[in-house]
Amino acid sequence: MKFPKNIQRLIDEFSLFPTVGPKTAERYVFYLLKRSGNDIQKLVDALLELKKNSIVCRSCHSLSESDPCPICTDPKRSQETICIVADTRDMLTIEGIGQYNGLYHVLGGELNPIEGIKPEQLTIKQLPARISSLSAKEVILALNPTIEGETTSLYIAKLLKPLGIKITRIAKGLPMGADIEYADDITLTNALKYRNEM
Amino acid sequence: MKFPKNIQRLIDEFSLFPTVGPKTAERYVFYLLKRSGNDIQKLVDALLELKKNSIVCRSCHSLSESDPCPICTDPKRSQETICIVADTRDMLTIEGIGQYNGLYHVLGGELNPIEGIKPEQLTIKQLPARISSLSAKEVILALNPTIEGETTSLYIAKLLKPLGIKITRIAKGLPMGADIEYADDITLTNALKYRNEM
Repeated sequence: MKFPKNIQRLIDEFSLFPTVGPKTAERYVFYLLKRSGNDIQKLVDALLELKKNSIVCRSCHSLSESDPCPICTDPKRSQETICIVADTRDMLTIEGIGQYNGLYHVLGGELNPIEGIKPEQLTIKQLPARISSLSAKEVILALNPTIEGETTSLYIAKLLKPLGIKITRIAKGLPMGADIEYADDITLTNALKYRNEM
Repeated sequence: MKFPKNIQRLIDEFSLFPTVGPKTAERYVFYLLKRSGNDIQKLVDALLELKKNSIVCRSCHSLSESDPCPICTDPKRSQETICIVADTRDMLTIEGIGQYNGLYHVLGGELNPIEGIKPEQLTIKQLPARISSLSAKEVILALNPTIEGETTSLYIAKLLKPLGIKITRIAKGLPMGADIEYADDITLTNALKYRNEM
C-alpha cells in the first residue's frame, strides 16, 4: 500500500529540499492537504514569482529589488573596500550586524570540483575590472571556513595578486561561547595560529 | 536591509509549514533560487495536482487513487473489524506493518476544542451507519495517545455504545527499547494499569 500518485509526487519534490527526508516531506504534504485550495495557490504564486521577479544587481550580483542595488548606489558607503561573499544570504547576514560600511561582491556560489562548479559559473572574472573601476583598496574574503570556501579564497587571492591590492580574509578561531575542551583540532589549530596580540 | 519582496514572500509561505522556522524557510528559498525554472515548475505542478486529483474513498474516507479505495473493495479483507484512524497517513502506517486485515475509517482529524475542530468536521456521524451496513463486530480506536486523541476516542466510544458492538483501543504502555528510568509518569502509569498476564 502506497500513497496516491499525486501525494507521492509532491513528497518526492519536497524530499529534494535540503535537510528534508521522506518523513518530513510527508508531513509537509499532509499539512498542505489540510489547507484550502486558496492557500496552496498563494504558495504556487510565490514560487512562480521567485524566478520571474528576481533582479540581480549588475555591479555586485546580489539579488535585489533594483538594479543597481541600494548598497551599490548608497553614496555613504565606502568604495574602498569590497567584501566577497558566496551568496546574497551571506551578504545580508553581514549587513545584519551593521559593522561593515563598504561594498560587496556576490560570487553566486563557491568553487566545487565535485559538483562541477568552476570559476566561469561564478562572478569571479568580473572582479578585477570592478576593483579597478572602483579604485578599491582592500578586498575582504568572507567565504565559509570549508574546503570549498578555502579553495575559492585561495583562487581569488591568486587572481587578484597582480593588482597589488590588499587582500584579507575573515578570521578563523574559536566562536564566542565555545568550549576549548570540545573544539575540533582544525579550529583549535587556527585559534593558535591566528592568535592576536593583546 | 531585507530580502527582496518576492524572496521574503516565499520565505513567509514556507514558514507556515509545520516545524519550519524563518531560517529553514530561507534555506529552502535559496535552494530553489539555485534550481532551474523547470525544476520549480515541477514543484508547482505537483502542488496544483495535489488538491485537484485527490480522491477520497466514499466508504472509509481515506485519500486514495480510486473511489471506493482498494482496501474497501478487497474481498480478502475482513469486514468484521473497523479500525478508526485520524488520517490517511496513520492508516498507511498501520498498513505498513502488515498485521491488520480489517477495514479502516478515516476521521479526517481529531476533536480539538482549542482549534475549533468539532464532530461535524470529522467523519464521525457516518460511523454508525457504516458499522451497521458492514455488520462489523469490532471497532478498534487507533488514535494518538494525546489529549485530542483521547477526547475523540471517548466521544466515539460513547456514540457507538448503543450499537452494542465491541469497542477496543490500541494499547498504551512502554515502547520497545524504552528505558523505565526515563519514562514519563503517564506512560509508566499506563504501563502498570494495562499490564498483561503472561
